[in-house]
Amino acid sequence: MKEQLATIKPGHILKNTMNALVYHGPQQKAWEEKPKPAIQVATDAIVRITKTTICGTDLHILKGDVPEVQAGRILGHEGVGVIEEVGSAVTTFKKGDHVLISCISSCGKCSYCKQGMYSHCEQGGWILGHLIDGTQAEYVRIPLADGSLYKIPAGSDEEALVMLSDILPTGFECGVLNGRIKPGDSVAIVGSGPIGLAALLTAQFYTPASIIMIDPDDNRLAVSKKMGSTDVINNKKEDAVAKVMQLTNGRGVDTAIEAVGIPETFELCQSLIAPGGTIANVGVHGKSVELHLETLWSKNITITTRLVDTVTTPMLLKTVQSKKLNSKQLITHRFKLSEILKAYDTFQHADRDKTLKVILSNEAD
Amino acid sequence: MKEQLATIKPGHILKNTMNALVYHGPQQKAWEEKPKPAIQVATDAIVRITKTTICGTDLHILKGDVPEVQAGRILGHEGVGVIEEVGSAVTTFKKGDHVLISCISSCGKCSYCKQGMYSHCEQGGWILGHLIDGTQAEYVRIPLADGSLYKIPAGSDEEALVMLSDILPTGFECGVLNGRIKPGDSVAIVGSGPIGLAALLTAQFYTPASIIMIDPDDNRLAVSKKMGSTDVINNKKEDAVAKVMQLTNGRGVDTAIEAVGIPETFELCQSLIAPGGTIANVGVHGKSVELHLETLWSKNITITTRLVDTVTTPMLLKTVQSKKLNSKQLITHRFKLSEILKAYDTFQHADRDKTLKVILSNEAD
Amino acid sequence: MKEQLATIKPGHILKNTMNALVYHGPQQKAWEEKPKPAIQVATDAIVRITKTTICGTDLHILKGDVPEVQAGRILGHEGVGVIEEVGSAVTTFKKGDHVLISCISSCGKCSYCKQGMYSHCEQGGWILGHLIDGTQAEYVRIPLADGSLYKIPAGSDEEALVMLSDILPTGFECGVLNGRIKPGDSVAIVGSGPIGLAALLTAQFYTPASIIMIDPDDNRLAVSKKMGSTDVINNKKEDAVAKVMQLTNGRGVDTAIEAVGIPETFELCQSLIAPGGTIANVGVHGKSVELHLETLWSKNITITTRLVDTVTTPMLLKTVQSKKLNSKQLITHRFKLSEILKAYDTFQHADRDKTLKVILSNEAD
Amino acid sequence: MKEQLATIKPGHILKNTMNALVYHGPQQKAWEEKPKPAIQVATDAIVRITKTTICGTDLHILKGDVPEVQAGRILGHEGVGVIEEVGSAVTTFKKGDHVLISCISSCGKCSYCKQGMYSHCEQGGWILGHLIDGTQAEYVRIPLADGSLYKIPAGSDEEALVMLSDILPTGFECGVLNGRIKPGDSVAIVGSGPIGLAALLTAQFYTPASIIMIDPDDNRLAVSKKMGSTDVINNKKEDAVAKVMQLTNGRGVDTAIEAVGIPETFELCQSLIAPGGTIANVGVHGKSVELHLETLWSKNITITTRLVDTVTTPMLLKTVQSKKLNSKQLITHRFKLSEILKAYDTFQHADRDKTLKVILSNEAD
Repeated sequence: MKEQLATIKPGHILKNTMNALVYHGPQQKAWEEKPKPAIQVATDAIVRITKTTICGTDLHILKGDVPEVQAGRILGHEGVGVIEEVGSAVTTFKKGDHVLISCISSCGKCSYCKQGMYSHCEQGGWILGHLIDGTQAEYVRIPLADGSLYKIPAGSDEEALVMLSDILPTGFECGVLNGRIKPGDSVAIVGSGPIGLAALLTAQFYTPASIIMIDPDDNRLAVSKKMGSTDVINNKKEDAVAKVMQLTNGRGVDTAIEAVGIPETFELCQSLIAPGGTIANVGVHGKSVELHLETLWSKNITITTRLVDTVTTPMLLKTVQSKKLNSKQLITHRFKLSEILKAYDTFQHADRDKTLKVILSNEAD
Repeated sequence: MKEQLATIKPGHILKNTMNALVYHGPQQKAWEEKPKPAIQVATDAIVRITKTTICGTDLHILKGDVPEVQAGRILGHEGVGVIEEVGSAVTTFKKGDHVLISCISSCGKCSYCKQGMYSHCEQGGWILGHLIDGTQAEYVRIPLADGSLYKIPAGSDEEALVMLSDILPTGFECGVLNGRIKPGDSVAIVGSGPIGLAALLTAQFYTPASIIMIDPDDNRLAVSKKMGSTDVINNKKEDAVAKVMQLTNGRGVDTAIEAVGIPETFELCQSLIAPGGTIANVGVHGKSVELHLETLWSKNITITTRLVDTVTTPMLLKTVQSKKLNSKQLITHRFKLSEILKAYDTFQHADRDKTLKVILSNEAD
Repeated sequence: MKEQLATIKPGHILKNTMNALVYHGPQQKAWEEKPKPAIQVATDAIVRITKTTICGTDLHILKGDVPEVQAGRILGHEGVGVIEEVGSAVTTFKKGDHVLISCISSCGKCSYCKQGMYSHCEQGGWILGHLIDGTQAEYVRIPLADGSLYKIPAGSDEEALVMLSDILPTGFECGVLNGRIKPGDSVAIVGSGPIGLAALLTAQFYTPASIIMIDPDDNRLAVSKKMGSTDVINNKKEDAVAKVMQLTNGRGVDTAIEAVGIPETFELCQSLIAPGGTIANVGVHGKSVELHLETLWSKNITITTRLVDTVTTPMLLKTVQSKKLNSKQLITHRFKLSEILKAYDTFQHADRDKTLKVILSNEAD
Repeated sequence: MKEQLATIKPGHILKNTMNALVYHGPQQKAWEEKPKPAIQVATDAIVRITKTTICGTDLHILKGDVPEVQAGRILGHEGVGVIEEVGSAVTTFKKGDHVLISCISSCGKCSYCKQGMYSHCEQGGWILGHLIDGTQAEYVRIPLADGSLYKIPAGSDEEALVMLSDILPTGFECGVLNGRIKPGDSVAIVGSGPIGLAALLTAQFYTPASIIMIDPDDNRLAVSKKMGSTDVINNKKEDAVAKVMQLTNGRGVDTAIEAVGIPETFELCQSLIAPGGTIANVGVHGKSVELHLETLWSKNITITTRLVDTVTTPMLLKTVQSKKLNSKQLITHRFKLSEILKAYDTFQHADRDKTLKVILSNEAD
């Protein structure tokens, strides 16, 4: 116990306040002082954040696109940290444990959780930085801690694990698993942003013969080549359908992963898909799309949607630990946690700064 | 050989002509004399039709909705019969065998056939009564005979087996298998016509807890009750979404089967589906539909389309032979083959005559 | 609260002792007074037993075959009851809830539970009436209550639900699900005791064409006919292999379910199985068996073992509630709980009394 | 046509005899003159062998272990070549096509073929170099050519493709697919000979976290390290069970692949397997083994057997063409076809010569 106390730096636990990134309504945010969170129910844990990041969803919130997020909310649903305190019903974790925070909270008891569909947990789901305060802060309260945190093995590269809070399980579960990629398959990923690249990295778990990356940004396409895409198409400059058909002997791809979230890209996926293929939607859509059942009704295709369940987090942890997955490739910029406004600026100007994912480190560590 | 000849009634094989139902362009058809078909390539068989039926698709053709069907084409893609002659490469069948004709022709050699996706066979697929002459005739040429016919065991009720040419595999493969129905599940079938009822009959193979039938026709709903539906909703009179939600504790159904083929019914399926559920499209759609990804993107749902492959025909044959499936329930009217114009009239006036499927029997038998 | 108190009959909660069936070493048991159980940790619940039953495993324990069961242990791992008290971390249940007790306790948090393999739960698994006191008593402490109990809907036939504590999920998960039974399949079940019959009842969820029951007891075979077997073989009087081959055109069965647990019956399953088939072991084996890899290596077969996980209990509950599964058919005898020694005698003399499952009802109700 | 004729070297098609490796009873073989094969039925093709190899099974035949192989039989069931002539019912291939020969012949019409279980094809299965003359010859007759040959794309490295006739589909289908390997899994392969190494190469399609290779030969273990094993155990020198448990935190492996075929190695797999795991048998067993159901009955394990179906050959071809699978790594020695007796000597002395697979090239090319 003494040793543990020794590692806690002065000041951490004596103050009752902390700094956090607070949403103040559309276009408004501040890095400001807030009360430190406390255990509210027996299944809670308090985690001192050591590293966190910013998600595209946070930008949507800031635009006002996610109306259920109220002014005053601390944002963020990703990160790693150290357990500060656990409620009396938490049995898996204890003070001092290093943990990965899942963007999805899971009770492990409801019918959805029992089926592995944590995204629809009756008590949890996506609540962090959404319905309750989130992880872009020095401390965070994690409800349903036993089902929502994952122990980090000693000696892990914790920065790499921040990518497992949301982006990698999202790319993997919504894109790759739902897309049922098999050895030898042809795959198209529409959208080479962080989510598309997360799908690209994890698609390689199943050894498809080709992964064709489609995006209007040449830099992002070049990045995808380094991460393992076999072909790239700049769909601002080229006819993506024609080129995919040429690459697949006129048949189309076995799996098309939609990683953008607008009608045009979903439309494109419908044009690329081979008979018997799967369109796995990952993008967050703000409006309806046109589904061409007049041609697709007889094409034996499957379309899937999914909010990430993070049910594969233990599997992904094993692939990172065994060096089969190099999740750090997604990180392009690093900041101190207190520089979070600067980090937001970099993340919002992804084209200008060639940003993929940023890491924010708590300088106290 | 002598015995076989003895069973062939005089006149059958001596004439070079036969009667057949011929399409003469939109709204025009005739029962008229045509040349008897002959073996063209070594994998062909000639089948003398003993019983056939009419499909909803035949009505679509007659409306002019299927432009690739040319005037002069003999219609029909369902039936049972007796092998009259086989080409030199046919090894599974011989003259005199009683056979079930599949609506889908399969070469068994192309990559689609090897994956069980016979609907997309590079040489076959749906060609009978579509791209080549069909089964509403005294004789029919069946290409790729080894992969497109099924031997009928002695003593079978052949009338019951006509339902296995198209309608039962369609309801089963496109609706039930694609819909992944499991014991205890809740199922909604939108459309209580022949196809919806075929899905209803075969859905019961998997023992769902409830099968809710939705249709604007009270007679068809009453028929569905006799065939095993647990609840019925007349969606002309009732709010189908409200009633389904009430029946499912507000959750929606695990599987929704679309068995109509118009935007309204596909829209309804999207409103009925529970998180994690599957919408299995069976209907033949003539135009695009609106897909509500703005709400469905996070609901973990699956949408499937399929042209029947008839890959489950051997399985269905076993369920009929073991009396687990009573396919005759779908037959409401019987005619002589020469009365086919009258049969078409009855089939086209399904509301008036309470028609589901009709059987046309070759009076020579 | 007043209403709930009113339904509790006088005497129930004021005494600190109860009666229970206690194991006192091989061949020795007594119905005797024991202290009432109390909450020990926050995830516990105390359940007042209303109905329980006796399992074949209890007889094994009494023979001394399960050495980890210590003298002084209250037996029983099945039953239904009413929640008397819950620990502070139990969130799914409250006092007065009617509950089904699962024979398997599940924490919902360990890696096994997260994969649905509750049988190997790091804190739970089969512990009731095994490593801790069980359900053949007026009260029982249920650890990990949220994951080990299931709410009984109002108006249920609770007697029928006692069959869902162990025997039906065992027959279903270990026999039917592991056996991958499909519509049209041929199935052999070796052993027509309660477990074999539970497999028989639930095999019908998937509509196999034939279910061949094999047992040396004509009464049990006759019972199986009433419950849906299509063929029966008395393997004391007939050559089971020869008869199965005759029934399956010399091919063997698609699925063989071993529901006895001795080398002879596992040997029989190996002789019955068709190429591509599955042998699903349900029996509890006391010694090793001979596996004929010298012939089976090239037969493309699958062999499975399983301790029931009760992960399908919610599914089974739905099939009972929707009257798709009549689980009461397994009950042959009924006793008061205080007559449990007589019930054991009847259960131990299954041949003499034609016993399948017995129900013990708490007379206080 | 002229061009094709030009590529056929003088002498090829004018002689009526050829050289072949003929089995003359146990321990006896000769490279001798035999009549050139000719088309016998319309589905046959005649292939001029360009490259072939020797299989462990050929050594078993030479020991007399495969009694159905008769004296006078030409051995061999692997190879690539050029179509010399096709029967009238062959539609997929024509003279001059470069083809991969599958060790399994498939009619594509029987119930086994329709389920993808070509190994049990009613007309085919393993017949080459077994029940009919095989591929260790200048020419071979391939029955059921459409289902038993695969077109080789122009520009392929044909030597690499010889590994796809048998050894790679065997390791992949019987070991990897049956073993259900998933990303992050732990895998043990018992036996580091050619078959075990084929399983090792193809196991990596699914990105397991660890692949532990177990063999008594240090050279073969060293080879496995180069091909991607993460850990090696020499089970002559070390306690394999203890080391595997140490590597897997006491849990055992998710998948154990038996690639030897003797009781000891199957016994070892039973000791290594984790609860919920799969033992995939690949080895050809000559006698029965002991199956420890007394401990395994409750461990939720699966055991599979399989004769290779070669149903994944198209998938494997794509992985080779896309350079995801480097099948040439298995080739250690190269000979002229006329040096086949020398090649047999090298293959039989695998320890001495560190032999994995040999390539025999027809010097006429």
